[in-house]
Amino acid sequence: MSADTGHATRLAYYARPRANYPLQHWWIAATSEEVGRARLLSRRILDLSILFYRRADGQVVALEDRCPHRGTPLSLGWVEDDQVVCGYHGLRFAADGACVRIPTQEQIPRLACVRTYPVIESGPFVWIWTGAPASANATEVPAHPWLTDPHWVAALGYIHVKANYMLLKENVLDLTHFAYAHRSTFAMDDDYDAPPECIVEEGRVSFRQDFLNKALPPFYGDACGLGNKPVDRHDLGTSVSPAEHVFTARIVNHSPAPGERAEYFVKFQHMTTPESPTSHHYWWVMARDHGLGESGRAWMQSVIEAGFAEDKVILEAIQARHDAHHCPEQAIEISVVADRAGLMARRQAEALIARESEAR
Amino acid sequence: MSADTGHATRLAYYARPRANYPLQHWWIAATSEEVGRARLLSRRILDLSILFYRRADGQVVALEDRCPHRGTPLSLGWVEDDQVVCGYHGLRFAADGACVRIPTQEQIPRLACVRTYPVIESGPFVWIWTGAPASANATEVPAHPWLTDPHWVAALGYIHVKANYMLLKENVLDLTHFAYAHRSTFAMDDDYDAPPECIVEEGRVSFRQDFLNKALPPFYGDACGLGNKPVDRHDLGTSVSPAEHVFTARIVNHSPAPGERAEYFVKFQHMTTPESPTSHHYWWVMARDHGLGESGRAWMQSVIEAGFAEDKVILEAIQARHDAHHCPEQAIEISVVADRAGLMARRQAEALIARESEAR
Amino acid sequence: MSADTGHATRLAYYARPRANYPLQHWWIAATSEEVGRARLLSRRILDLSILFYRRADGQVVALEDRCPHRGTPLSLGWVEDDQVVCGYHGLRFAADGACVRIPTQEQIPRLACVRTYPVIESGPFVWIWTGAPASANATEVPAHPWLTDPHWVAALGYIHVKANYMLLKENVLDLTHFAYAHRSTFAMDDDYDAPPECIVEEGRVSFRQDFLNKALPPFYGDACGLGNKPVDRHDLGTSVSPAEHVFTARIVNHSPAPGERAEYFVKFQHMTTPESPTSHHYWWVMARDHGLGESGRAWMQSVIEAGFAEDKVILEAIQARHDAHHCPEQAIEISVVADRAGLMARRQAEALIARESEAR
Repeated sequence: MSADTGHATRLAYYARPRANYPLQHWWIAATSEEVGRARLLSRRILDLSILFYRRADGQVVALEDRCPHRGTPLSLGWVEDDQVVCGYHGLRFAADGACVRIPTQEQIPRLACVRTYPVIESGPFVWIWTGAPASANATEVPAHPWLTDPHWVAALGYIHVKANYMLLKENVLDLTHFAYAHRSTFAMDDDYDAPPECIVEEGRVSFRQDFLNKALPPFYGDACGLGNKPVDRHDLGTSVSPAEHVFTARIVNHSPAPGERAEYFVKFQHMTTPESPTSHHYWWVMARDHGLGESGRAWMQSVIEAGFAEDKVILEAIQARHDAHHCPEQAIEISVVADRAGLMARRQAEALIARESEAR
Repeated sequence: MSADTGHATRLAYYARPRANYPLQHWWIAATSEEVGRARLLSRRILDLSILFYRRADGQVVALEDRCPHRGTPLSLGWVEDDQVVCGYHGLRFAADGACVRIPTQEQIPRLACVRTYPVIESGPFVWIWTGAPASANATEVPAHPWLTDPHWVAALGYIHVKANYMLLKENVLDLTHFAYAHRSTFAMDDDYDAPPECIVEEGRVSFRQDFLNKALPPFYGDACGLGNKPVDRHDLGTSVSPAEHVFTARIVNHSPAPGERAEYFVKFQHMTTPESPTSHHYWWVMARDHGLGESGRAWMQSVIEAGFAEDKVILEAIQARHDAHHCPEQAIEISVVADRAGLMARRQAEALIARESEAR
Repeated sequence: MSADTGHATRLAYYARPRANYPLQHWWIAATSEEVGRARLLSRRILDLSILFYRRADGQVVALEDRCPHRGTPLSLGWVEDDQVVCGYHGLRFAADGACVRIPTQEQIPRLACVRTYPVIESGPFVWIWTGAPASANATEVPAHPWLTDPHWVAALGYIHVKANYMLLKENVLDLTHFAYAHRSTFAMDDDYDAPPECIVEEGRVSFRQDFLNKALPPFYGDACGLGNKPVDRHDLGTSVSPAEHVFTARIVNHSPAPGERAEYFVKFQHMTTPESPTSHHYWWVMARDHGLGESGRAWMQSVIEAGFAEDKVILEAIQARHDAHHCPEQAIEISVVADRAGLMARRQAEALIARESEAR
């Protein structure tokens, strides 16, 4: 048992609503579908009010959602010629944030502009860089080739969770809760009865768990068509960054019969974007390279929606208690071995935040 | 007029949400009916989140409603073998608060436990001791023999009141409000036009009022069947403790005709349990030794529910104004003679709180 | 461009909920219709809870809406013989604020009284003086003769706006927002494309704008029946005080044909009464000396209700952002030439507040 687990600590981590997220980071802002030319999407991200729209050339624009004139949310206005028109007095802002028109005067004050945010579209997602624009590096936006590969099928959903985003990251870094929180929805009770191996490499936190020579639970097995045939399953979940967690189940069939494959893959993504210190946007993905087609996708959509709704109830109840607790820093938190990866993810975020502070 | 009444004081008493209740005390937590084996009852009492359930042997258990592992309310879980299973990761707690199982490891950290609270069932109520368990004295739980006496009939109700509990205690210690707050429901306008006698004995605050050689108001008279016959009625209301107020009306019929009795009794209980500094749980009882049977009970139930709903409106309006007032400590409070018992009840609670502070 | 406009300032003005309104002032409290004999009207004005009722002689009374005994809102009680009876214990208050009866005792404590407020009825409005009663000067209550002149027609409405009252005053002092906020409702796009002249005289802030030799927009023209005939229109809007804004459009027809007039008048009133630092009561009036009759009134009522609902959405969105913003004092505010009158109105109120502070 490491120094982190097995003993009680004062629960300082969630003591107060904390901005426990790095600003110099890429986060998912929306799905591509949400951002259109005819509509302005307003979303609170890292406690910033941000406006999204799509230019005629298809490029997504992200602007501070506040007119610097009288503070009106620009999302109450409209788009004309790729520019945003404030719905109050008609000030007009170009996609680069500059005020390009004040209807009642020629002169445009130098500071009449709104902040812009670098954005990148990748697969189904629009990513936003919430740090200094000059530091944005588009190559750091993660790629998820399986989301556009025709040999894969994917289901994707959005959940608004009224809980700090780290509570969700800890949730997906410790799947031992499957046997309790999801005992009726996922029916994988036996799988996660031991704490997994925790690995920290290159600032990424992973857990690994192997299920060898064992029939798959129906959740995995039904789509593979392997019945009760014993196979190896290798689970690997990685908190790539505060914004992204990717889980891969690799199913190895050592003696494939005709019509069977030697390998099957299932992937989960848990994409977390803080909305505020006590809430976050959560986009999930389940994808696989078998059980394709609309019926496969629909099954994944419905079973995951049901299961993750269970997590939402639990995480929001934990957050509500943190908020109601008069002295949260006096509440005790007991960590167990299975919490190692989650505790490392807290440190992963803290290290990024500390690096930002130093850079200032 | 005493030093307390008849002059204006700065209203410091309700100035801020105050924990104006003793912790080293027995309070009603629930009715027996509310606590079952198959369900977990979660209730906030003195700003503590507490979980109640019933063991197979019928004993009621009260535990801190928070898993020390990740802060999940245990009330989201379930009961197995008289133990509570956390609905998130399956940690299991025995009725004595000890963690007896962590599904993913053998070793159980020493501090992995939840606080337990002594409870006593008495008549229809479950009582809880919110102080140090070692100080709990079961013999201090009040008995209400009339609630189980077959020669009595009782109606019982629960009201959640969004107001400090002391506002209700003051309400039931000064019945001169009957002629105004309850003029249409109870129709006892003439009764309470003078302030009653106030008595403080053994730390208990009482008021006494005698109505001599007078026909009973219909509220009392109808069930006795004495019509307009002049009788004596002796009212005695006692704030036994911050948790309990018992009122007795003794009706004395000096010349009982055939079929009449020489004495009739009516009792009210006003059981108050703070939920937070600005809200409380209120269980009321009306009981009598005449006018028995279901129709008698049903009449009491409906007339008291209607009348006490009037108190709820008033007390919540007072609390809302206290909360909204920017400088409540600058608001003036004028006390009159009829407030004496209420003011003594404030002191009664303050004395208990002061004694607790000294004992620390 | 003045020192105020054209450059960015830290937005300190709305930084925190501020009591940016003078207390020594007449404000509209209600319409006459709202105050009756049989009912008690409770309204929050300048963060004070005030009770209104009408005596048998028709005089409106305004009292502090709080019984000094136990803090009950007096508006939960009722009126008897021109006096207010507290609905809790029956304390009775005369129209001069004095407690005249305590049901349970003869002696009435000297300080058992409630604050009274001078009120004046004028036209359709009840005005209240929220300062020291001795300073109230009834002659300062503004007169609006057009509201009772049979040769005029008027529509009047009330809107509760969850925004600081100064946001509305700035709104009506800069009509350049018509082309954007009201482009579909008022259809006066072309009118307000230049900032108006701003005049400060005798502590009053006005803007003036002339539209010469031009056809009227349908909003004005339809009721005059002048079709596309070119006329002169002189707009004059004046913030008479923090409580009152009066706008007059004088339409001059230099060559009246038979059946036409040489002059037409339209008036708007924007009467603002702070409810709290973040909300206000808003009574609006539109009146004119032509297009009389119920159909004329009904048209004004519906078009103004639709248009001003658009302002409500915008102002409440601005206030909500002010409230949500963590460091509003760091948000930048860019003022343009068209803001001059609004900025002067902020100063107008600040000067009155400063004068009050000095007088203390």
